[in-house]
Amino acid sequence: MTIPAPLSMPPRLLMGPGPITVDPRVLQAMSVQMVGQFDPAMTAAMSEVMALYRTVFATANEQTLLVDGTARAGIEAALVSLITPGDRVLVPILGRFGHLLAEIAGRCGAKVHTVEVAWGEVVPLEMLEEALRTVRPALVAAVQGDTSTTMCQPLAELGTLCHRYDALLYVDATASLGGNPFETDAWAIDAATAGLQKCLGGPPGGAPITLSGDAVARILARRHVEAGIREGDDVDSGVRIGSNYLDLAQIMDYWGPRRLNHHTEATSMLYAARECARLLVAEGMDAVIARHALHGRAMLAGVEGLGLRVFGDRAHKMTNVVAVHIPDGADGDAVRSGLLADFGIEIGTSFGPLHGKVWRIGTMGYNARKDAVLLTLAALEQVLRSAGVAVLGGGGVGAAREVYQEAAL
Amino acid sequence: MTIPAPLSMPPRLLMGPGPITVDPRVLQAMSVQMVGQFDPAMTAAMSEVMALYRTVFATANEQTLLVDGTARAGIEAALVSLITPGDRVLVPILGRFGHLLAEIAGRCGAKVHTVEVAWGEVVPLEMLEEALRTVRPALVAAVQGDTSTTMCQPLAELGTLCHRYDALLYVDATASLGGNPFETDAWAIDAATAGLQKCLGGPPGGAPITLSGDAVARILARRHVEAGIREGDDVDSGVRIGSNYLDLAQIMDYWGPRRLNHHTEATSMLYAARECARLLVAEGMDAVIARHALHGRAMLAGVEGLGLRVFGDRAHKMTNVVAVHIPDGADGDAVRSGLLADFGIEIGTSFGPLHGKVWRIGTMGYNARKDAVLLTLAALEQVLRSAGVAVLGGGGVGAAREVYQEAAL
Repeated sequence: MTIPAPLSMPPRLLMGPGPITVDPRVLQAMSVQMVGQFDPAMTAAMSEVMALYRTVFATANEQTLLVDGTARAGIEAALVSLITPGDRVLVPILGRFGHLLAEIAGRCGAKVHTVEVAWGEVVPLEMLEEALRTVRPALVAAVQGDTSTTMCQPLAELGTLCHRYDALLYVDATASLGGNPFETDAWAIDAATAGLQKCLGGPPGGAPITLSGDAVARILARRHVEAGIREGDDVDSGVRIGSNYLDLAQIMDYWGPRRLNHHTEATSMLYAARECARLLVAEGMDAVIARHALHGRAMLAGVEGLGLRVFGDRAHKMTNVVAVHIPDGADGDAVRSGLLADFGIEIGTSFGPLHGKVWRIGTMGYNARKDAVLLTLAALEQVLRSAGVAVLGGGGVGAAREVYQEAAL
Repeated sequence: MTIPAPLSMPPRLLMGPGPITVDPRVLQAMSVQMVGQFDPAMTAAMSEVMALYRTVFATANEQTLLVDGTARAGIEAALVSLITPGDRVLVPILGRFGHLLAEIAGRCGAKVHTVEVAWGEVVPLEMLEEALRTVRPALVAAVQGDTSTTMCQPLAELGTLCHRYDALLYVDATASLGGNPFETDAWAIDAATAGLQKCLGGPPGGAPITLSGDAVARILARRHVEAGIREGDDVDSGVRIGSNYLDLAQIMDYWGPRRLNHHTEATSMLYAARECARLLVAEGMDAVIARHALHGRAMLAGVEGLGLRVFGDRAHKMTNVVAVHIPDGADGDAVRSGLLADFGIEIGTSFGPLHGKVWRIGTMGYNARKDAVLLTLAALEQVLRSAGVAVLGGGGVGAAREVYQEAAL
């Protein structure tokens, strides 16, 4: 076969719903050479990663670690390890990623019950309480920020409510963590997972996870050490977890003091995850969230300044992504292609009922920056004009600038 | 919390059974910036990866792609997608990784039958045929190179034999691919998976996989497109695959012309996988395998030249790793620690019945090199001497040099 050339990628400013442009310091960390799986330098790095993500997740949970796969692997690890086949699981659905949780829970053998709202809304707490009362689930699985609609589900009281009905609470914070307040312990969340490729400023492929004591107890009640490495005092308990790769009981044994061999840790992804969290913690989690709020506000003002109409319930919008209705007469995909081909800027469309109806513009991670916001608005203005959409010259950049000026006062 | 410093790892020469030192050109590829998930540059890179791994796997299989996780994720993706709960699955067990296949197949709901030989041997074809005749499995799942024992299971005739009994053949080639002959099509193998961190010269975290037409047909017979992205003509068929993340039907739809959203591809790992295969294909697969054979032969001669005794059936040894009995009186872990602390060189021990009984020394990927072999032997001589083991000064390096001299003639 013809040998392709060494990798060369075009420069892109990724302003979609993620993945986003990776902080160059994270890319640098990924090019650090390997050490062995149980090298003292490796196990020390694993311990640092655990400590760093406790700060990111705002938790004291000992079991705070990485699943080796994309955000979806983290979700499935949590669900397959927490759900015993036959369990009732309640899933509030705001958009595509609520459907995903229901789908994965179903594959884990759960009896899935959903409460669903129209895309662009969040689920009221009373609706969740009513469902908890009637369904009596073993687990509630909720998305915090569903990028398909840009809605951010309020969670502050949900953990306590779940516990009142003897349910654990799992939260998929993939797209929201770092960009929106998230308080694992203060909100009594039992399990949460994320991805690196959104507000954490990293590449897709690693999934931070944190587990409360109750979640750990539920998982360890189903601990089965695999043949070939088990020892005399390893006794099986409970119904075996349906996955080996995503079995959190085994993954905790690997990350814990026993360092029991499981998979071979994806070293470069661990390096990336460490650097993502290190940069966030150095900046300060409150400052990181405030930064996302500021640039999100500027982008929202900017798209409105261009005359575009924002989608969804604004009171519950995620900070880090905005959805706008594609204006009548404009070809949504052609505008996106034009932005990419002529300006090197990527924005997204959405899924299901919103596919081809909205664009989604993100301001997250490394790209929650003033120059990224202003460049995107300036380019979008040009592309909209070429597409025949009536735009106010300078309206987008001007409105965003005003937000920045107010913030600087 | 205290902010840790940017990542800095000690220099290591990784001469264990993997992960190994990564080719610096692969590390460089990993530091390339992101493009979007469906950017034409990204989908072009995905297509290149498919073509490159067809050459690596020696196959014309259209469905040759990556699973986003470590080698174990690739194994589980193959098994969970190929096994319908209740299927009979036959697993030949040579060592720890055969136990792992049996374990994963069990979690996928298979009725698992095993044929087992003593550690250090391979399973005779007649024994496999006898088991095929009596068990009548839907799938045979076999490890090619089981690093726990360093044995390489002969496979050339197994695929045809399996088909005669209406079984498909899956092979875990994680530790062997690139270092030992592997012929997907010529050997009639239906599914094979690997990892990057052995003979392919990359980091752990990506799992190349190839699937024959029969394997694809079996998987697509259980195709379920997930809610939230399914379209009108997506009809469910068969028993739903028990994992979403590792569902190869969905992963094929993501890599295929439909580009149906599933996980977000782990971009940096894809970059790494592309560079690993690019380097292998540029060198030529036969040359890569010959290189592993040469340096493996030199290492084997070297450890014998030091007076160490090789473990296992030499006629069926993998080229890329050798196991040696830890000499009487030597503390195996102390020798390994001394090599690491004083010389920066890592070698491995093994699992189960061989734990603490053998050392495993790898010559694979980037470290299948003369200087790596000679340095390891020189350092090992010193550490053995310090541990009070009688060694012949220069015996290891000298014997290895002879192998290189003969090869140069």
